[in-house]
This record gives sequence, C-alpha cells and structure tokens, in this order.
Amino acid sequence: MKYEYLTNEDLDIAVESYIAALKGEGLAPKAETIPVFEAAGRITANAVYAHICAPHYNASAMDGIALLAAVTFGATETTPVRLAPTDFIQVDTGDPMPDGTDAVVMIEDVVRDGDDVLLYGAATPWQHVRQVGEDVCAGDMILPSYTRIAPAALGAMLAGGVLEVEVVKPPVVGIIPTGDEIVAPCTDPKPGDIIEFNSTIFSGILAEWGATPKVYPIVKDIKEDIINTMKQAVDECDAVIINAGSSAGRDDYSSLAVSTVGKMLYHGIAIKPGKPAILGYAGAKPILGVPGYPVSGIIVLEQIMKPVIEVMTGANLHRQDEIEATLGRVMTSPLKYREFVRVRVGINEKGEFIATPLNRGAGVVTSFVKADGIIDVPQDCEGYEPGDKVKVTLLRPKEELANTLTIIGSHDPLIDEIIDVLKRDNPDSVVSSSHVGSMGAIMALKRGEAQMGAIHLLDEETGEYNTSYVNKHFKDGGVVLEKGVKRIQGLMIAKGNPKGIKEFSDITRDDISYVNRQKGSGTRILCDFLIKQNNIDASKIYGYEREEFTHTSVAAQIASGTADAGLGIYSAAKTYDLDFIPICNEEYDLLINEEAYNTEKIQAFLKVLKSDELKERLERLGGYETWN
Amino acid sequence: MKYEYLTNEDLDIAVESYIAALKGEGLAPKAETIPVFEAAGRITANAVYAHICAPHYNASAMDGIALLAAVTFGATETTPVRLAPTDFIQVDTGDPMPDGTDAVVMIEDVVRDGDDVLLYGAATPWQHVRQVGEDVCAGDMILPSYTRIAPAALGAMLAGGVLEVEVVKPPVVGIIPTGDEIVAPCTDPKPGDIIEFNSTIFSGILAEWGATPKVYPIVKDIKEDIINTMKQAVDECDAVIINAGSSAGRDDYSSLAVSTVGKMLYHGIAIKPGKPAILGYAGAKPILGVPGYPVSGIIVLEQIMKPVIEVMTGANLHRQDEIEATLGRVMTSPLKYREFVRVRVGINEKGEFIATPLNRGAGVVTSFVKADGIIDVPQDCEGYEPGDKVKVTLLRPKEELANTLTIIGSHDPLIDEIIDVLKRDNPDSVVSSSHVGSMGAIMALKRGEAQMGAIHLLDEETGEYNTSYVNKHFKDGGVVLEKGVKRIQGLMIAKGNPKGIKEFSDITRDDISYVNRQKGSGTRILCDFLIKQNNIDASKIYGYEREEFTHTSVAAQIASGTADAGLGIYSAAKTYDLDFIPICNEEYDLLINEEAYNTEKIQAFLKVLKSDELKERLERLGGYETWN
Repeated sequence: MKYEYLTNEDLDIAVESYIAALKGEGLAPKAETIPVFEAAGRITANAVYAHICAPHYNASAMDGIALLAAVTFGATETTPVRLAPTDFIQVDTGDPMPDGTDAVVMIEDVVRDGDDVLLYGAATPWQHVRQVGEDVCAGDMILPSYTRIAPAALGAMLAGGVLEVEVVKPPVVGIIPTGDEIVAPCTDPKPGDIIEFNSTIFSGILAEWGATPKVYPIVKDIKEDIINTMKQAVDECDAVIINAGSSAGRDDYSSLAVSTVGKMLYHGIAIKPGKPAILGYAGAKPILGVPGYPVSGIIVLEQIMKPVIEVMTGANLHRQDEIEATLGRVMTSPLKYREFVRVRVGINEKGEFIATPLNRGAGVVTSFVKADGIIDVPQDCEGYEPGDKVKVTLLRPKEELANTLTIIGSHDPLIDEIIDVLKRDNPDSVVSSSHVGSMGAIMALKRGEAQMGAIHLLDEETGEYNTSYVNKHFKDGGVVLEKGVKRIQGLMIAKGNPKGIKEFSDITRDDISYVNRQKGSGTRILCDFLIKQNNIDASKIYGYEREEFTHTSVAAQIASGTADAGLGIYSAAKTYDLDFIPICNEEYDLLINEEAYNTEKIQAFLKVLKSDELKERLERLGGYETWN
Repeated sequence: MKYEYLTNEDLDIAVESYIAALKGEGLAPKAETIPVFEAAGRITANAVYAHICAPHYNASAMDGIALLAAVTFGATETTPVRLAPTDFIQVDTGDPMPDGTDAVVMIEDVVRDGDDVLLYGAATPWQHVRQVGEDVCAGDMILPSYTRIAPAALGAMLAGGVLEVEVVKPPVVGIIPTGDEIVAPCTDPKPGDIIEFNSTIFSGILAEWGATPKVYPIVKDIKEDIINTMKQAVDECDAVIINAGSSAGRDDYSSLAVSTVGKMLYHGIAIKPGKPAILGYAGAKPILGVPGYPVSGIIVLEQIMKPVIEVMTGANLHRQDEIEATLGRVMTSPLKYREFVRVRVGINEKGEFIATPLNRGAGVVTSFVKADGIIDVPQDCEGYEPGDKVKVTLLRPKEELANTLTIIGSHDPLIDEIIDVLKRDNPDSVVSSSHVGSMGAIMALKRGEAQMGAIHLLDEETGEYNTSYVNKHFKDGGVVLEKGVKRIQGLMIAKGNPKGIKEFSDITRDDISYVNRQKGSGTRILCDFLIKQNNIDASKIYGYEREEFTHTSVAAQIASGTADAGLGIYSAAKTYDLDFIPICNEEYDLLINEEAYNTEKIQAFLKVLKSDELKERLERLGGYETWN
C-alpha cells in the first residue's frame, strides 16, 4: 500500500527533460493586450515600438524670442541686427516653436528698442530648441520582449503614443487538494483532521511568480472523483498541481489521474524532501503531483514548478541571493537523495555568515517561516562538519541578514514580545530567534552563531543563576551577562488539579504522566536538580523521556490531557488556563557577545527590555518580575 | 512669473523633519482584517498568535501498533511481552493516537502470534508519536507586527487556527495632474500638448510600494479648481501628490493650494532634479508637490515620498543594492545642489563595475528606462574624474548586471532587434545598449565600459571601413573586429522630394535646411568625408550644427518638416516613409573585447546576428545585406 515510485530521477536531469518535453508540446507564454496604465510590473509579450516621437513637436527650451536663425546672421557685438516685431515671437520654455522659426534667443540676450529688438550675436539654427524625438523617436524599440515593465517604462510608452501593450497573460494554475482526512481551515479540527493549508501556500507562491492560482474544492480519495477533477482542471487551466495526501498508507490515485488525463514523465525524484513528485503533462499543459507535507510541497514547487512557470511567463524568477556560509554544527545527509535543508543564517562579528540547520521535518511549516535560506546538499554528500563552508540560497534579502540580531537560546515568550515592540518602533529591525535551551545558547555564542543567548542556568552548589556557567564556558571572556527578568517556574498541572498533585515529588506517582523538557534546557537542568534534591529515582517518572522544546508545548501536552504535569513558567500555564504550583523564582538573563554589545541592534533590544511597554506586556503574560 | 522657492533645504534634514512632523500629527499605518488566504505579501499590522496547536492531536509517526507504553515494560530480547488484541491497535502514519495509548511500536518490531503480538523490547512513553504542537503551539507568536507575510507563513497561520489576519491597509494616495497644456495620453497630440503620463508612472511606483493610487482628472491652471480638487483629494485619500506643470513661466498654484488646505513645511529642496518639491500636510495627511518633469518627479517620489510611505505601511522599502563603481568619464555637478545622476552600469572583464552617466535632461523619461542605477552626488562635490570610485544605488538586481552584455556605440535598429530575439530565446539575457556613435564605441571599449561596440568608420584614404581605426586605437590588440552587416547610407528627404534634391551637394542650397549627426558618429564622419569629397564649404550648410543622436531622430526631423535633408540609413527613411537617395553601402561591424569574446553572452549575440530570424527582420527593416 506504500507509494510505489516508478523513477528515482536526478533533479536536474528531470527538470531539463521535463521543460524540453513541455516546449516540444508547444509550451510558451500567452499574450493579452491591456491598457498601458495597468501594465506596471507585467512582462512584455512582444517588443514595444514608439508610435510617435516624444516630444512630438519642437519646443522652446528657454524663455526668449523665437525667430528664423537666418535673420540674425551677421550680428556681432559691434554690429547688432535689428529685428522688427514681425521677425520674432516671444516664447516661454515649453512653448511650441511658431511656424517659420528655428531658433530661440534667450531673453537675457535680447535688447529692446521700442517695438524692435537688437541682437548682438548671430543665432545658430535650432539653438535652444528641444527637438522632436529628444526622448524617443517613432519606430524606436522602447522595450524588447519578455521584459518587466517598470513604472518609468509606462511613461516612455505613453510618451511614445503607445496606449495599449501586449503582455504575458498570467497562466492559470489549478490546484487540487486531495485526501480523506483533509479539511478546510478551521479553528476546531477533530483529531485526525488535517487542515488543508497547502493550497493557500501554493497560491501565494504562484501569485508571487506571476501566475493566477485557481483552487479546486478538496477531493476525497475516490479514484473517479480525482480523475474527473483532474480532467476539469486540465480543461480550465494552463497547468495543474495535484496535492497528494501526506499519508503513505493509501492508494495512490494521483499518478493514476496524471496517466489517465495525460502523460507521466517521472514519478519519484531523488530529492529530500519531495521524493514523491510526479512530473506529467497533457499536451502543453504541465501537471505536477506534489507531496502532501507542506515543506516537501514548497521544495517541489521551487525546484520543479518555478522553471516551468518561467517558461510560461517569460519572467526571470531565479533572483535569489546566494552566499557562502560557515556551518556551525555537524549536519548529516542521506547519500540516496539530494537534500534541501532549511537554515537560519546569522552574521558574526567578523562579518561571516553562519548557517544553523532548522527542524528538518517535512511537516513543520514554521521551519519555512523561520528559515533564512536553503542549503542544497548534493546526492553524493554525506553531510558537513562544523566549520565547513556551504552555499546558501537566501530566502530573504542579503542586506537584511547583516542587520539581523540573532538570538539563540532558552525559550520565553518575552523574546517574541520584545521583537514585536522593536518592530513597532522600527519596522526595519530584524530579529531571528531560535529556541534551543540555555546550554544551546552558550554553545551558539561560542560558535559565533548568535549575538545573543537567553539563559537560566541554576548552579546546584551555590543556588545562583548563570554566572558560574558563564565563567566556566567563557574563561577568556568575550561575553557580557545582562540582567533579564525574574520569572516563576513551577509545576503546570491540569485545570482544577484532578489528580491532587501537591508537590514536585508527586511526579513519581504511578498515576501521573510527566512531560519533560529537552536536555540542555535550563528547565531540564532545574528538573534534574529537583529530582536530586528530592532524592527521586528518575526511572520512576513516567514520561521522563518525553521531551518538548518550549514551555508552551509542555503546557499544550497537559492541556490536551496526554500528560498530568510538567515543569514550566507561569505565563505558559496561564496561556493554557492550567493550574500551577510555583517552585522557584529564577533569573532569566541575556548573554551577549562582547563585540556586538554596543551595536545599535543589541542596544535597541536592551532598551525595549527595560521599557515600560515591555513591563506592561509582561504583566499581561504573568509571573515576571523586572529588575528595574 | 518664475517659481519662487521659499526654502532651499538640505534633503536629509527636510525628510527627517517632514517625517517627524507627520508622526507628530499621528501618521501611522492603518489596519484592516482580511482572510488569511488573501494575505500573501501583505504586512502584518499586529503580532499574530496561534489559536490552536499544530498538529492539534497526537498522531502516529510510523506504521505499527499503538499501545500504552507501560504494558511493554520489562520486555527484553529474551523475555518478550505478549499483548492480547485488546492491548493494542494497528495504526498508520498520521493516524490519531487512539485513546489510552501513548506510544507506537514500528510494524517491523511486531511479532505476530495468532491474534496476539510479541514484543522483544520495551517501548518508551510517546515514542514514534508526532506530538501536539510540534509545529506551533497555541499562544505562540507566529509573526510579529510589520512583517511581510510570506506564503509559508499563510500555512503556519492556518495550521495555528488563524483564519483572519490584521494587515496594514494600503494607504490611498491621490494624484492630481495640473496644467493647461496637459492632455490625456493619445496618439495624435497637437503641438504644445504635453501628454500626461506622470500619473501613470507615479501610480506604478506607489503600487510597488504597497499604496493604492487614485488619479484625479487633469486640472487646468485655475486657482479655484486646483484648491477645490486638493480639498477633495485630502478628504478622500490618505496622502496627496500634486503634480505641477513643468513650465516655469506660470503662476504657482500648487504651493497656494497646499498652504490653503494644510500647512507647507518646505518649498524648494536643494536637489537636482527635483528642486521645486513642496512638502506639506493637512493633519496626518502628507501633501507632496512634485515637479512636472518626469525624471524630477520620480526622484522626488523616491527621495521624499518613499520614506513617508514606509511610515504609512510599516514596510521596509529601501532594499536596493548599492555597489561601488568606477566612473568611465568626467562628470561635473553643480555645487548648489545634491544631484541624482542616472547611470548605466557595465561590468568589465576584471569584474569591476563601470558607471556611465546617461542623459541628464529632467524631461527624458527613457533615461530612467535605460538606467541601471543612480549616483548620489553630494552638494559640496563638483563632480568626478574618470577612474573615480562612486557609490551607485542599483535600480536592477545586482546579479543581473553581472550577466549583462553592454553595447555602446553606433546606432542601428538591428541592435534592438537582436536584443529582442535574444530575449525571446532566453528571457534571462540582458543587453544594455547606448547610442553614442562609432568613436564613442572605441572610447567605451578602451575604458572598459562595454564588452561590445558597433562601428562604421570610413577610412578616407583607403575607402575601407573600420580596420584602420581599430589598428590605430588598439595598437596592443585586446579587441576582435567581427563582421556585422552592410547597410545603405544615403540622404533622407521628404516624401515626394518637394525640393527636388538630386545629390549630396544640394544640401548647400539656400532653400535647404540640413540636419546633422553628432560629432564622433560614423555618419557624421561620412558627412564630413562627403563634404570634403564634394569640395563643399560646411558653413554654407544651413543646419550643419543641428545635431541628432540617432538615424530615427534625423528622420523624425525631416518627417516633421523642420529639416529638408539628413544623412542616415535606409531603414530609418523607410520607417518614416521618407524618400531616400542612396550614397554608399557601408560596413557596420562589431568591436568586441577580446577577453569577453568567448563568453556565453557575446557568443549568443553573434549567433543571433548570423541567424535566419535576424535576416528576416532585417529584410523587413530594409537596406541591409548580411555577410553569410
């Protein structure tokens, strides 16, 4: 019942032969004629030639008198020429040259003598005249084919008497979502429902590429329905995307539908994610089968659909910056596939780009929201070592990265709140934050992956927070420890405390299911400290190995009823309306690269940290105490 | 009657205090709520938080059996645990975890024994389970304020149960075109009419910045009408642009209208072009007075309106690449103004950017179509020498420049036709071509401003074309001379030859007005050769000093009746339906930088030059002969 792939083709070869096959079927941009004033940003379908000259008449380029230059010939400083009023006409700049005149004498050079004027110098024919066609001449090519029409070009066309222009018609791309579990976006999905958001992502991407998306209603996994919808879409659209369900345990009607309606060129491309892609066509209409996981879908669109859309629109869409970055940590990759890995990109104080791989789950769409770029790992590459140089295709403008404040470390919603305040004060500010725990913060600062890390690390011996860890890991300095906030940590438990949990040691009870935090997080260290303090045997805690990465995800497990207790901060318990047993008031501080400390971005961050605005937001979140 | 400027303010100071004044009046982005599926590319007006977790249920991450991990405790390779059918439930990947289960054992590890199964290892609670909130947790911030919504973020929002999102409402910017001579775009303007295309250019620019343009009908220079339209626009829009006529010889009602309806902060900014700009506001509504010349208008919008729109939209619009380029030639600039000079940017074989200033006329809108970037010349700078390094703000993506084939030289429409064929074959190809004459081509290649130049230079002594010039100017080689086409040069004269012109020497006749080409052009050199050959006294030629830069502009002067004759190629005469007296068949060749010769872009160009497609196009143009 698993997908069966007919092919395991190399991506480049597949795309090249797919494009060749489509062009062989006649795939090319279509044209439509639209008024020029609606054409900004569109792509010309044909060369545009001027119909008239601009300017279309000879005009005075000065304030003065227009005359026939010949009547001034012989004038010198000593022998002026006298002109009668019939010999000249007064003109302002921009006035059309009167009939029978071919030169302008500046008003400053005109000496009045009654109604006559005296000129003490001869005029050259066509002096001070803005001549016909200075800007553009009738017959000149204003724009070649397949050129994006910038706003100034609209002016050039209108000046050249071009009122309508043939532009590339946006190809209509049908998107068919399929699957029994797929439901339309809603706020109360049932267990097992999969919210159908791929068609919205794909529509957004296609619109950015200049295509017009057309989303069909969700089709259940019924063979006839899928084939019929495919037929309808091929009939109505210029290209079709069928989005298969993500489950591998089902019949595969997508490839059947493609083969029935058209021709299937490939089913299975040696990329990860995106392996199940189907490359087919019906005549000159591309049909793409896209896997169900959103990340796989985006990669397949980017790698396979984009070059097809380029052929259909005549547009150059591959305008992403590419940079060389240093990998901060080890990254393995399977030899079977060419892999596309989403990464965060930071910039260290030496100006080097540092890439940090993100969650590689094909279902984790937020990894794409957070990603700054993509590493393209060749099929024959087993991965990279820390320090290796890698090419990163950027998803954001390069100069934005240089201004980005990269924060890696312990999770607290206050970081997001500070980012929001920063954005409201200055929309240019860019902060990239990743939740990898307090020890992750220390490692990230050591590796130069971040300018700032958030930590809350309890020293078991002294009972103090953070200082001893910083002293130990940064023996030679290089970092500044900045006071952050105090926050209440405790045991989050279900609303109303149905299991009557009284204290931390209750988590060993047989009827209690615990949910833990990941190793290296400050909260995990606190958990292990409490276990030791209470002389608990960790193996007695049901769920000790169940690891979550944020306070809210621990709270979410408890709220969903799959765990009874977990350590976390008060604000997370409050967000999920959980009960809370306070355990300690911990110090959540900021570790900052010393060289970056005085940069604008760090100082702006610290200013917000100490602001009244943040204090108000923290009060709403609950469980915080500020130092100022 | 000239404009009177109240101020001559420094641009940076003016913009800063303008923004401060507007913010003081409460200028800020407005918000509107829209469905998420329509939100791609929009800017968030507020932080977006997830309403539900994604995934919203615990799901099996494997095909296998779901069970309570506790029932497997104690299982080892030697002492398996036997489970009855009531202890487990078969699940596929993606299935919701059945009630009472908290772990999945992979199907590969399940040993069937009748209806029972045997497990040879204990399961850990929550193993192989994709837990609630792996992607995003309820309460987590998905996007901060004032962030562009990328397609993947639409998915993250829908996954997080967010169906509607508050985004920045595009500010409506009213555009009021004014002026007695201004007419709507048309194909047959009367002498003195000025085609109103600024509102279309401005609309295109504003739309690119995320604003919604609203163009008002053209208002004549009637004080009351201008004030009333301004009142209406301030009432109906979030910001207003009044586009003054370009003529300086008129009453200035723009500043009066601004002062009447609101407050005028500045009138006159020390920039060139753009000096007449008016910076005003009515409450929190910016009112900008923009000069009438299109280039001035674009510069004022870019320098003054853009930062205002950034405040109104929360968007970061200053994303243009900046490069350092070498100036190929001298460029002077007035000390009174900060000047914005449009330039072409080429890249030489050492990978250095070379900037070449374009026509600086404020009325020449095509200079903006051709421009690759802008040099910002400080007010206290008198200009630059050849070889000086200058900062160029790019109007095109930087990587496009690296692929650009720069052609500088003699004008012939065939260059544009080749560019069009190249574009149709490969929309990625970018060719930048400037018409500066044959000698200009030689200089441009010497300075490294271009990879290719087009020349047709007659050696008066040998009667041969081009070779002797190349030998003289490139004594050490470094260039390749490639055969181009043969084309017929001759005298273009009015249709029907009303003045009975028979041969070149007729241009000295008293009743004949001649139009010449610029010094350094091959056609000018031909003209001077013919003058010498015919023993003509150039001072006898009426209009000898009247210089045009292209064949079509010479033809345009003759067609408009302001000249009787001019030298040019047959195709130009044909385009303008002129009569033509053939004089010679000249060789129009291509001079190519030797190092660039084998690059893809040059070879692609030469391939088209020799193609049948071009031959057909040349036949349509008329007067050409190809070498192959």
